[in-house]
Amino acid sequence: MPNPLFLPELREMLAGHDENGLREFCIALHPARTAEYMEGLSAEESWEVLRHAEMEVRVEIFKYFDSDVQVEIIESQPHDEVAAMVAEAAPDDRVDLLSEVDETIVSEQILPRLPVDERRDFLRLSAYPEGTAGAIMTTDVATLAESLTVREALDELARSATEVETIYYIYVVDNDGHLRGLVSARQLVSAIRRPTQLLGEMMETDLLVAHVLEDQEDVANKVARLDLLAIPVVNDEHHMIGIITHDDVIDVVREEATEDAHRIAAVDPLGEGYLKTHLLTMSWKRGMWLTILFFGAMLTAWALRRHEAHLDTWTWLVLFIPLIISSGGNTGSQSATLIITALSTGDIRLADWLRVIWRELAMGVLLGGFLAILSFGVAVAFAPNLLSACVLPATLVLVVMAGTLAGSILPMIFARLGWDPAMMSNPFVAGIIDILGIEIYVQVAMLILPHATPAAGG
Amino acid sequence: MPNPLFLPELREMLAGHDENGLREFCIALHPARTAEYMEGLSAEESWEVLRHAEMEVRVEIFKYFDSDVQVEIIESQPHDEVAAMVAEAAPDDRVDLLSEVDETIVSEQILPRLPVDERRDFLRLSAYPEGTAGAIMTTDVATLAESLTVREALDELARSATEVETIYYIYVVDNDGHLRGLVSARQLVSAIRRPTQLLGEMMETDLLVAHVLEDQEDVANKVARLDLLAIPVVNDEHHMIGIITHDDVIDVVREEATEDAHRIAAVDPLGEGYLKTHLLTMSWKRGMWLTILFFGAMLTAWALRRHEAHLDTWTWLVLFIPLIISSGGNTGSQSATLIITALSTGDIRLADWLRVIWRELAMGVLLGGFLAILSFGVAVAFAPNLLSACVLPATLVLVVMAGTLAGSILPMIFARLGWDPAMMSNPFVAGIIDILGIEIYVQVAMLILPHATPAAGG
Repeated sequence: MPNPLFLPELREMLAGHDENGLREFCIALHPARTAEYMEGLSAEESWEVLRHAEMEVRVEIFKYFDSDVQVEIIESQPHDEVAAMVAEAAPDDRVDLLSEVDETIVSEQILPRLPVDERRDFLRLSAYPEGTAGAIMTTDVATLAESLTVREALDELARSATEVETIYYIYVVDNDGHLRGLVSARQLVSAIRRPTQLLGEMMETDLLVAHVLEDQEDVANKVARLDLLAIPVVNDEHHMIGIITHDDVIDVVREEATEDAHRIAAVDPLGEGYLKTHLLTMSWKRGMWLTILFFGAMLTAWALRRHEAHLDTWTWLVLFIPLIISSGGNTGSQSATLIITALSTGDIRLADWLRVIWRELAMGVLLGGFLAILSFGVAVAFAPNLLSACVLPATLVLVVMAGTLAGSILPMIFARLGWDPAMMSNPFVAGIIDILGIEIYVQVAMLILPHATPAAGG
Repeated sequence: MPNPLFLPELREMLAGHDENGLREFCIALHPARTAEYMEGLSAEESWEVLRHAEMEVRVEIFKYFDSDVQVEIIESQPHDEVAAMVAEAAPDDRVDLLSEVDETIVSEQILPRLPVDERRDFLRLSAYPEGTAGAIMTTDVATLAESLTVREALDELARSATEVETIYYIYVVDNDGHLRGLVSARQLVSAIRRPTQLLGEMMETDLLVAHVLEDQEDVANKVARLDLLAIPVVNDEHHMIGIITHDDVIDVVREEATEDAHRIAAVDPLGEGYLKTHLLTMSWKRGMWLTILFFGAMLTAWALRRHEAHLDTWTWLVLFIPLIISSGGNTGSQSATLIITALSTGDIRLADWLRVIWRELAMGVLLGGFLAILSFGVAVAFAPNLLSACVLPATLVLVVMAGTLAGSILPMIFARLGWDPAMMSNPFVAGIIDILGIEIYVQVAMLILPHATPAAGG
């Protein structure tokens, strides 16, 4: 939560060039909280405050700024100073930071000012396609040679610990950089009383790794399943080239869950915050699906026209069209959402398809049967006689069953084809049920009503 | 993925009482992979294999079994042996494990066999309400006194490191157990060359903590925002009583995202796996919402009946009822899902309500306008004249705007009232739009059609 109470004081300190006060402000709190207190300052004011912090703290506070402010600072403030800070950021954060900055400024102003190692690193990391392990990994990783002793390893870590992102897992490599095993900081601390033991002797060798081009969702599922702190990333030659840490995995899990939710509601994933998405981008991401669904829904008009003669004879049937298609659509959405979320969390597998269909069939009978009973009471009030009133409950059972079956089978077919099952969005399922529902309704009516009294007008 | 290839060998080893082979099998791989290789064995066979592993490994492998198998083993295998293993599990895992086991077996067979500390711990942890920090925390935590030196702290950790769940953060407490600060394993290792420094001097004191009764989603958001490995849990007196670690946070993030997705689709959150939920439970969790929505949809029948006279005059209007209500419903679902997910990830705050409404209004005009243009072409083919054809586009603009506004405002009202915005599910929004849509359609028709030629029949 932003806290505007501190802003007047900060502005006063800036105006009075109170260097000590500003320096004190930057280090007094956790960097995230410092960043919160600064919300409301302009990009220029924020940068002016940050200049009073040591580089290490500056990077940390900057990391928690809103991305709008980050981009504005990088684009508008003196490029020398900005580049010096970007150079100090963690490699994966650096790629995230610069990904939203104007490309010309990045390539002409920032990159040339980075030290050569950081520049190469940036170019390499930003080359991995979005959504892969390579795109979210960091290259700041503690690796040690398998020939080191516990004592040597601890000394080595004491020297490098402040530079690498995490030392909770220490990866052990051979002379050629191939990943050989893992020693946890916990093991190392426990082994402090056996200082001459070799890392190669104590390391865990059955490691779970991510390939650099592996899908980020698969990687996140692995890490979540095994409760890992981090997973090493390797290339085809099993060289260790980076790690993905628990905090990146949380981000991936959230991002994928939000993307799924958006797809389920027929919105193309935004990729950035709701308020940050441009109105035209947003209308494209929503409009494209609405248009497809619109043409689908158009078919309902044709379906109804085909049956216009019957609807003119039995006008009371028309009253229940919205009720029938929305009951079918709602049941279909429930099924589709349950199946899509269960598939993406690994709760069900495609191999379970027969059990899923069987369950959804049973669910259709149960739910459809229940709604049918409810509807019979209402239908009696509208229909000319008891037999006619049966059209509504009979249709509902069939439409609800169509909903549970379409809602479960279609996402599984998509998954089987290697597509994202969430693309089989709820409105899409509902659209199919709209057309099916009208067809079922009229067929049931044509089957039953001719046997009811011939004077069956509304 | 289960790997049935190993099962015949395992069964052969069991039949031949190959103790060395089974012992070797249990320790050769990562416990998670060992558990995967055992999928397909009966509960009894699995337990027989596990008995060949040392207790520490046994607990680890058992943790990765399917929860069905875990429950069956705990309920059916010798209670002495099972209780001995349960005693060794991490406190939070122990609560999870026993939560699904038959209550009588837990209270009469397992609990009396646990050591007194573990039993008290279990009773205390399981008393915290579901969804709170207390219910997901573990009590295995490394705390050290602020008066220890770096050297003493490392020695102390070396003694206890294998017992506690994580030593990556070391919490520093005063003599009364009040949380005072935090030292990371990284700081401690870096300080190895200043062995006489006191923890109280080097610790970070601006800590983020979770209160034991805090909502788990809020805790997860804090941890995710600050990229923490763990967060300490305190009671009213600021005594440190547990921690929540990164792996539990990932579980919470997933669980909450899945719950949101289910609520959005009008399914009461299942709380367990899709295939594990009993059919009757499932039909209750879906049926209750379907019933509410059903009665809502019933109102559409009344709305249509009120306007039956007009619909009889202009019968071609009936053909577009499904198209109109589904266009409005789809747009409403998009808005509701976007707002609900943005609220739950903290991407928008309630204070942004005016910006949100403004955006959705603009979105309604853009999307509605576009669909209106598309629909005009179709309407011309069905309507008796050009002026009549305008009913469809004019209605669509208004209905789509009603969709974007209802879809965005209703979840925000729910959030403002302190309810879960995801309860304002998509089918609920769509149901409201169904009724509104019919009303708008008829009003627009009554406004326009009398000015068209009087002979306006289909």
